[in-house]
Amino acid sequence: MKIMPANAFALKREVEYGSPEQNESVQRIIETVRREGDAALRRYAEQFDRVTVDELRVSEAEIESAYAQVDESFLAAIREAADNVRRFHEKQKRTSWMDLQPDGSILGQVIRPLRRVGLYVPGGKAAYPSSVLMNAIPAQVAGVPEIVMVTPPATAGAAGIDPHILVAASEAGVREIYRVGGAQAVAALAYGTESIAAADKIVGPGNIYVALAKRYVFGAVDIDSIAGPSEIVVLADETADAAYVAADLLSQAEHDEMASAILITPSQALAEAVQAEVARQLETLPKKDIASQSIRDYGAILTVASLEEGVRVVNQLAPEHLEIIASEPFQYLSAIENAGAIFLGPYSSEPVGDYFAGPNHVLPTNGTARFSSPLNVDDYMKKSSVIYYSKEALLQNGDKIIALAKHEGLEAHARAIQIRLEKEGKSRG
Amino acid sequence: MKIMPANAFALKREVEYGSPEQNESVQRIIETVRREGDAALRRYAEQFDRVTVDELRVSEAEIESAYAQVDESFLAAIREAADNVRRFHEKQKRTSWMDLQPDGSILGQVIRPLRRVGLYVPGGKAAYPSSVLMNAIPAQVAGVPEIVMVTPPATAGAAGIDPHILVAASEAGVREIYRVGGAQAVAALAYGTESIAAADKIVGPGNIYVALAKRYVFGAVDIDSIAGPSEIVVLADETADAAYVAADLLSQAEHDEMASAILITPSQALAEAVQAEVARQLETLPKKDIASQSIRDYGAILTVASLEEGVRVVNQLAPEHLEIIASEPFQYLSAIENAGAIFLGPYSSEPVGDYFAGPNHVLPTNGTARFSSPLNVDDYMKKSSVIYYSKEALLQNGDKIIALAKHEGLEAHARAIQIRLEKEGKSRG
Repeated sequence: MKIMPANAFALKREVEYGSPEQNESVQRIIETVRREGDAALRRYAEQFDRVTVDELRVSEAEIESAYAQVDESFLAAIREAADNVRRFHEKQKRTSWMDLQPDGSILGQVIRPLRRVGLYVPGGKAAYPSSVLMNAIPAQVAGVPEIVMVTPPATAGAAGIDPHILVAASEAGVREIYRVGGAQAVAALAYGTESIAAADKIVGPGNIYVALAKRYVFGAVDIDSIAGPSEIVVLADETADAAYVAADLLSQAEHDEMASAILITPSQALAEAVQAEVARQLETLPKKDIASQSIRDYGAILTVASLEEGVRVVNQLAPEHLEIIASEPFQYLSAIENAGAIFLGPYSSEPVGDYFAGPNHVLPTNGTARFSSPLNVDDYMKKSSVIYYSKEALLQNGDKIIALAKHEGLEAHARAIQIRLEKEGKSRG
Repeated sequence: MKIMPANAFALKREVEYGSPEQNESVQRIIETVRREGDAALRRYAEQFDRVTVDELRVSEAEIESAYAQVDESFLAAIREAADNVRRFHEKQKRTSWMDLQPDGSILGQVIRPLRRVGLYVPGGKAAYPSSVLMNAIPAQVAGVPEIVMVTPPATAGAAGIDPHILVAASEAGVREIYRVGGAQAVAALAYGTESIAAADKIVGPGNIYVALAKRYVFGAVDIDSIAGPSEIVVLADETADAAYVAADLLSQAEHDEMASAILITPSQALAEAVQAEVARQLETLPKKDIASQSIRDYGAILTVASLEEGVRVVNQLAPEHLEIIASEPFQYLSAIENAGAIFLGPYSSEPVGDYFAGPNHVLPTNGTARFSSPLNVDDYMKKSSVIYYSKEALLQNGDKIIALAKHEGLEAHARAIQIRLEKEGKSRG
């Protein structure tokens, strides 16, 4: 891992958004599902997953039997994690409000859950029960009445779904689950088929085909953001334990060759100690190949004159995950402008947030923390404005509304007010 | 205006998102501005607006002198409208929060304004002071420290900006204004030039080139939604005044040939009276041609068995604007799932909300009220999660985090916790 001054570094990743061939293939799949419905879903399952799907919907019995197939320790941990995630997200929930005016008018904002949300869950090795919780529970807290999950069979050639995924879904309140994956699943959620009703929003991670499909159907339905490669920045001073810092950097690097793990520190001693620790800890990691490439291509140890300068570098990078391991980490919190999740102190290792503490692990990647937020309850709600204008308010303000409308050359707008002033003014006077 | 049963109607508009030539032209403009900066902005001003721009930034003196060029009545109306918009949006603002745990951990959510927001304002006839207020004031309420406006010269051949726009901007707290428009202005806001610093988000209406440019730069910066054609649905019973209903339908229809104005009513008498009134009022409208075409192509009077059935039709249409003119309009409010803004009662004519009452007039169009919201203060803020885990919490929960990480095959995640449990567990015991 290279040590360099912060001003010599720029994080440059050219993120791949799919080849023209992939885009074309995704479009074709989506339009076919739109036209042919369930028949297309079954055909693609045979073609891509080598699976004959009889029942698209996963039965209650299959969900129940999943509980018998998972460890007690897994079940206990996922239940406690779900409770924590639920408790944290409950605090995000907002209510409709109204504002009563002295003239009798009422203005307000209605805040409601979306009606139906589709959650994509990848199959195979990327089937993460923690992601099921993180995507589904905020929807449940929002009050979304229909949360539906789509996921491909766990292994090619067999129609069964990973029981851990089924248990996580069930714990997150999701009981409507379909065994379908890929772009075809996104198409089903966007436009509906005989078996799967169309949703208002599609969320969840997926491979490049799923990402392209989500982008394609956006507009017909809402989608969450499309995740880019992941980042961690650790801002640390000489009080930090080099072994902890190195382990946290590697926990990000093991995700993906394009993940980025960066230490920013004013301490040359820590820089060198972390460099040595990363090399040492890498040796025995199962995902050593991925992590090594990530560290080599997008990892760095950046030296700065002070933690204050480090904060400025953090704000430029706008990392998905930020750890601050320093004496008095809270003193830097108010200066952090751009970061998806901020982990403070030596015990707040990133996996604490990935799995358990309660805040969401779906976070803005690739510098978008400048303007985006962690997945949250608002993402599953929508607002409507409410205007109940009183007769008095209209008679009082009508002329001003007419003046503004006429200035903008919108005569029909002016007349809609004028016609009322003429009738109501008379009836008053 | 045709009268038909509601179940015989479907609103079908094929919205145009730009030709390949337009897309190519926009891409070329953006990449040129990105490469050449201010020089490209000046060149495009000469090419597209036949204007030689000396100073890109509008001077304080020009803003001050704009006040002398607008009517007293306009100024008074815009000031009162601005106050109303500010008061309404203040109620949307949220604060950061934290949640203290018994084990000493602290979880929280930091909510901050975006740092820099760019507001696009069209020139010429589409230069609407009301849009300046609606886009800028929520940003100001959010606390965005830098709100910058870009707008092309008011008339081709002269560099001056419409004084009404300058006054509206100034009243909304915007003092950093550049005379540049089109795709080139969007490029400047997205990537920055020598004179114009890059923004984190770009909002505001514009023509097809502006819309395509916003879509092209999305990702580098955030953008607002791209507005489609506008809609009004009036849900009314026999107590409604046909002349009011007709006037409100026409106020939407005059916007655009693709705008849609729809009455839904259980009253055949009202249906026929509104039909006659629309024809009568159309005759003398300055924008008669636009409004007639809109009414012919996308307008309808839909008859239903009851207002309850009408509400179901409303929810399917998910209109941008909904008026409910009926005895006891509030009794239907809780059943309205999908609508951008809801206007209740005979005095809440749509222009009341377009110009004056306080709620935003930037609303979800084209059925997207199913999952989108009016422009609001949240759109100018971002969140970060905060996790401060205590040593006790880590020792208590570490094993569960490790179990979940191992289950997902993420060994480096597990080790980041394990290494702490080993050291800290020892130091405790």
